[in-house]
Amino acid sequence: MTGERMDLSGLRGFAAERMDPTQRRAVEGLAARARMDVLDAIARAGSGHPGGALSSMDIYATLWLCARVAPGDERAPERDRIVVSHGHTAAGLYAVLGNLGFFDIEEFRRGFRTACSAFEGHPGLRVPGVEWCSGSLGQGLSVGCGFALGLRQLGSPGRVFVVLGDGEQAKGQIGEARELAAKYRLGNLIAIVDCNGLQASGTVAEILPQGIEAKYAASGWRVCHADGHDPAALYQALRSCCGDSTQPTVILARTIMGKGVSFLENRFESHGRVLKADECARALEELRPLAEANPWQVPERGPDRQPPEPVERRVLAGQPLVYAAGRTLDCRAAFGAALNSLAAANRGRPGAVPTVLDCDLLESLRLREFRRDFPAHLIECGIQEHNAATVAAALSRAGVLTFFADFGVFAVDETYGQHRMSDLNATSLKLVATHCGVDVGEDGKTHQCVDAVGLLANLWGFQVLAPADANQTDRMVRYAATTPGNVAILMGRSPCPVLTDAAGRVLFGEGYEFRFGQADWIRAGDQGTIVSFGHMVWRAARASDSLRRRGVRVGVLNLACPVELDAARLREAAATGLVITYEDHNERTGIGAQVGAFLAESGLHCRFGRMGLRRYGLSATPDCQYEQLSLTAEALEERVLLEMS
Amino acid sequence: MTGERMDLSGLRGFAAERMDPTQRRAVEGLAARARMDVLDAIARAGSGHPGGALSSMDIYATLWLCARVAPGDERAPERDRIVVSHGHTAAGLYAVLGNLGFFDIEEFRRGFRTACSAFEGHPGLRVPGVEWCSGSLGQGLSVGCGFALGLRQLGSPGRVFVVLGDGEQAKGQIGEARELAAKYRLGNLIAIVDCNGLQASGTVAEILPQGIEAKYAASGWRVCHADGHDPAALYQALRSCCGDSTQPTVILARTIMGKGVSFLENRFESHGRVLKADECARALEELRPLAEANPWQVPERGPDRQPPEPVERRVLAGQPLVYAAGRTLDCRAAFGAALNSLAAANRGRPGAVPTVLDCDLLESLRLREFRRDFPAHLIECGIQEHNAATVAAALSRAGVLTFFADFGVFAVDETYGQHRMSDLNATSLKLVATHCGVDVGEDGKTHQCVDAVGLLANLWGFQVLAPADANQTDRMVRYAATTPGNVAILMGRSPCPVLTDAAGRVLFGEGYEFRFGQADWIRAGDQGTIVSFGHMVWRAARASDSLRRRGVRVGVLNLACPVELDAARLREAAATGLVITYEDHNERTGIGAQVGAFLAESGLHCRFGRMGLRRYGLSATPDCQYEQLSLTAEALEERVLLEMS
Repeated sequence: MTGERMDLSGLRGFAAERMDPTQRRAVEGLAARARMDVLDAIARAGSGHPGGALSSMDIYATLWLCARVAPGDERAPERDRIVVSHGHTAAGLYAVLGNLGFFDIEEFRRGFRTACSAFEGHPGLRVPGVEWCSGSLGQGLSVGCGFALGLRQLGSPGRVFVVLGDGEQAKGQIGEARELAAKYRLGNLIAIVDCNGLQASGTVAEILPQGIEAKYAASGWRVCHADGHDPAALYQALRSCCGDSTQPTVILARTIMGKGVSFLENRFESHGRVLKADECARALEELRPLAEANPWQVPERGPDRQPPEPVERRVLAGQPLVYAAGRTLDCRAAFGAALNSLAAANRGRPGAVPTVLDCDLLESLRLREFRRDFPAHLIECGIQEHNAATVAAALSRAGVLTFFADFGVFAVDETYGQHRMSDLNATSLKLVATHCGVDVGEDGKTHQCVDAVGLLANLWGFQVLAPADANQTDRMVRYAATTPGNVAILMGRSPCPVLTDAAGRVLFGEGYEFRFGQADWIRAGDQGTIVSFGHMVWRAARASDSLRRRGVRVGVLNLACPVELDAARLREAAATGLVITYEDHNERTGIGAQVGAFLAESGLHCRFGRMGLRRYGLSATPDCQYEQLSLTAEALEERVLLEMS
Repeated sequence: MTGERMDLSGLRGFAAERMDPTQRRAVEGLAARARMDVLDAIARAGSGHPGGALSSMDIYATLWLCARVAPGDERAPERDRIVVSHGHTAAGLYAVLGNLGFFDIEEFRRGFRTACSAFEGHPGLRVPGVEWCSGSLGQGLSVGCGFALGLRQLGSPGRVFVVLGDGEQAKGQIGEARELAAKYRLGNLIAIVDCNGLQASGTVAEILPQGIEAKYAASGWRVCHADGHDPAALYQALRSCCGDSTQPTVILARTIMGKGVSFLENRFESHGRVLKADECARALEELRPLAEANPWQVPERGPDRQPPEPVERRVLAGQPLVYAAGRTLDCRAAFGAALNSLAAANRGRPGAVPTVLDCDLLESLRLREFRRDFPAHLIECGIQEHNAATVAAALSRAGVLTFFADFGVFAVDETYGQHRMSDLNATSLKLVATHCGVDVGEDGKTHQCVDAVGLLANLWGFQVLAPADANQTDRMVRYAATTPGNVAILMGRSPCPVLTDAAGRVLFGEGYEFRFGQADWIRAGDQGTIVSFGHMVWRAARASDSLRRRGVRVGVLNLACPVELDAARLREAAATGLVITYEDHNERTGIGAQVGAFLAESGLHCRFGRMGLRRYGLSATPDCQYEQLSLTAEALEERVLLEMS
């Protein structure tokens, strides 16, 4: 079959005008072989989703044979990307990849859905060839947008193919992605919808009738149709999408759920049906003739290409902007200024100029100057946070330094599910949440992000930072830009004074370098410690200074990393005999919970109290809110004295 | 103007064939008066959103004058509902309501966006006439679907009008709502889109081009057009929607941002522009002639109608299903059985038969029998969790006992932002999250909801329950059904043994009644306590029994309410000298954090340790996962012994 493989390689990149009958039979042989492996692996595992895997199989076989990605090349920057959105078809994906030589197919057949195996129930990143770990439906097209934007920005000829289910077209995030793709004329983005007309609980038509073609057309996409089980037809449709178009295309591929096995075909129950041993044997018998007529031989794996270096290692941190003592300014302004400074320092460095995704809050996020100076690096998404969050994460994976900035309620609360998937995908998103806390002011409780720490603490892969003033903001933004991985920066809305030590020297000035996990002593004190973060720190310092004038020595510790606790400094704090956490955050889930649990677990038996939010705030100025919620510096002072009495 | 008011009341319910010129001038007078109040209130507050408030003003004036809702009637069950989706137009809404006599308009003018006032920056529920607290864009149409489904189910003739912005049409959730409304033929749902073509950062066309008309048409909606500043035209369009249609309608209303004030009109900067004193004076001068030509007189408020009783007080709990010792079954099955039992017990009681929203997981949620027996009460949404979560919450506010059931990752993680808004809206959602923890098994980490407690702990208005076996599930479902307010029930996937005490008696059998906030002693012990919840409790009991055989007396406390801690029983636990939390949940945010912080804060200085997840699990059977993650009963035993040594 080596000769036929030579023929097949001519299809790569859709170079050949068409698939000839010999080639087509070879592709059919690959698909038949992979179908058998799917059923075998699911039967061994005792769980899985055969219906969709068999339905998408011919799409997978055609795509992976014809796109510009091959074993060994699967991390080459200029490769085509293939994203599987309907992750429950993982077995189909694995079977094709294994039969193409991306890995030893036996590992899949034996290891699928078992501990310690890379072959998880939904696509796992440890499997060579898998571009994205999916499983939460409706996010794949956003991933495709992010990759397509990234390839374009880096000047790569690569194309992005996204395979989706028809049931998941109900997800609104797909609509958001469609419109962003059309706005940015992503001609390098090609969606293929596996239209088998069935989903887990019945037909698509009865579960949620959708005009899928009309929706894509309404969003300005080119729509093609193809028989999703005819490799030659799929090839033609895919090839027609690979011109120099500025319009994204969708191929609606007519398919049959459970294709190839008579008693699985066209039955919604096949979605998650695991065959018993005798059924599996019957199914394999049905598939065998086609596989034997066109025997497939797994090719040798090519030499491994080195993966590209993370973009963050190529980013220059630039010259820190130092704000002088006596100034009062909001961290948002410092964020905007740091972005411009970083962009200027990295001009001309591929991927290293920050790209920022905005959801119609340019002015509030202090991004107008950035857009003016670096317009190609400001991606305006409009009001579609779910899509923006996923696009940003995927763009970061494509090798572009990417920030997603938004109000806290949208950057964190609204998009938590998206960030959770980014966490699982080891992306490198720089998430900037502004307007956190009741500090958001008059917009009121719908806009109060009083749970950012409580939410992000759940995501193991996110570093969570909270600057206490403009200087620390500047340094944290540069840290995030030069550090691989997901980093979230939380800030309030109101101006904060530049922090100084008790002697009036700037605390985070020249020579200060932010280190992840380090808390900062803002004030010393041996009679107790206030532990705070973000825009409450200057209030804590004020309370400490006032108490000192009354003869009470209480320190202030800035928990600049409110989730990654600084054990050494918290031990110092506990040694003062009293720890009070003070935060503009739900006290049940913020640093109060984190620090309290740490003290208990470490056996540090000091007095401990929490000051934070026990309900939503009001629609009023921040000062007025803190007054009403007993969170002013004066209230803190009283609380300290009460605890000490 | 009293005479003219009589004429206007003829417009109520769109009874009159058309608005005559006298009526039209009166409506214009109301709108002009309200526009002046908007500018006045925003100027006094020093913040707000005049652009959209003036843009939507004529829509608000026409709607509130003509829909079947009036001061005093605003809580009558059969009223029409008017939902404002683009909540930043709150000032416009308040100004119309105040001028219609829903409350004293002066309270709005003086109190807007100030502490202690009901007139928050985004619509607040404390304002009479406000149906929904909005501010997170894109959710209003889902709210409308929920209300429309509720009115239909309760046999009410009421209609639901939803006013939306054009910028927010970018949100995917609106697309989800459109399709659900079309599927359920919600002819009683009418959307009005304020199409002023501008949003916060520029024109809609440049920020995110959208074919709004095409999108609604693609979803099967009837589309009308109207001049959004001509009350008579709006009236005609609205009246045309109020036939006996089975098709939802959208009115695309052409409007002008900042309408009525020359220097605010058609400028995107007017979105959030606060006028200086002299500008405000000029603006008022521009508006005054129209207001004086058609002077508006605030009518008397009618007699107050009593609000309906919460549906939960009308729900019969039915006969508990008691599962016998020795049985092993999954909590999902007990949930499905309890639902059927509740539905049967409440047959014929309006609103009291549970209605369940499903997102294509009928079989996994054990809802097939419920759908078979109560098909009208199973709302199949397909794969669109964001919409389903909001629809369910709104349906509960319409007086229908409503459950939203889904896998934990979709019921909680994916939809956290929606639940946060439901929390602010004092809804009465019964949220059932199944498949929580790594107990989800082979589906792998994309499906591992290991943060449900950590997320829901942020929502003050949610009661969070976690049953430890089938019996407790049954009782908790009945508790949720008969208790007003938001209640979340978290459960795993795998079968659990029916829990018994050390003597083998069923723990949650006959006579057991679930009480919110109460933890349960599963085993007694004076040398230490394991605190656990959900499907880990039986493992904890097994560890305790095994330790007892080895002469070690360690108790087990079931934290059935993992957020609302039972202080008394935790004190008893601390008195044993050792507390270990044991959970299938991120240990940084689960009961480990909650209990640890409680111990520290209460000065209970016992030894304390956490056993939970420090990373995502694998794709494998639950037993295999617990083995790999050192969370088996045996591992717990070892940990207890280690802590005691």
